[in-house]
Amino acid sequence: MSHPTGIARLPSPPYYAVIFTSRRTDGDHGYGAMADKMAGLGSRCDGFLGLDSARGAEGLGITVSYWRDEAAIAAWKRDTEHQQAQRGGQQVWYADYEVRIAKVERAYGKPA
Amino acid sequence: MSHPTGIARLPSPPYYAVIFTSRRTDGDHGYGAMADKMAGLGSRCDGFLGLDSARGAEGLGITVSYWRDEAAIAAWKRDTEHQQAQRGGQQVWYADYEVRIAKVERAYGKPA
Repeated sequence: MSHPTGIARLPSPPYYAVIFTSRRTDGDHGYGAMADKMAGLGSRCDGFLGLDSARGAEGLGITVSYWRDEAAIAAWKRDTEHQQAQRGGQQVWYADYEVRIAKVERAYGKPA
Repeated sequence: MSHPTGIARLPSPPYYAVIFTSRRTDGDHGYGAMADKMAGLGSRCDGFLGLDSARGAEGLGITVSYWRDEAAIAAWKRDTEHQQAQRGGQQVWYADYEVRIAKVERAYGKPA
């Protein structure tokens, strides 16, 4: 789970992270609506654990989604509406991006 | 390597990612100077591969640093000046944070 100014609260590792780092093109071109829709769709997928996202004033964005396992990531990548969004991302919305799939082995938060 | 509006360019996986997600306290209190210093120090550590960082207008920040292996991460965590910064992070600069250590297994970028 996550909330607007919070940090995703997740079960104990191991689980998977998809680190999506991107640089946007200029203008919206439907990006905001798509991003909101994808966050909603993804969060209802089986195996979705949480999401954190930030985009700085200088245009670099990092979205990290967390998943139970690689099968859950693969199923979300194949989702029909998500595939449409992926094509839009390649053609319109992103000047550049990098996707990194990683297995989270350890995690710790701020001491209470 | 990374550059201000670019995305870290890294060797092929496997390598490690430290995903640092944070929410700042109000005010600077020396945070900016510390963050710049830590980015400089970290990037000169043995085994450092790259860094991407973004903080949104609503205050959530994500910094992902990339490392050759777990030993390089452990050495950076033990660095004396970094340990001072970690204490300041706990006591002054961060309202909340989460650190996740993950092994990057696959990566791909935007098709050319």
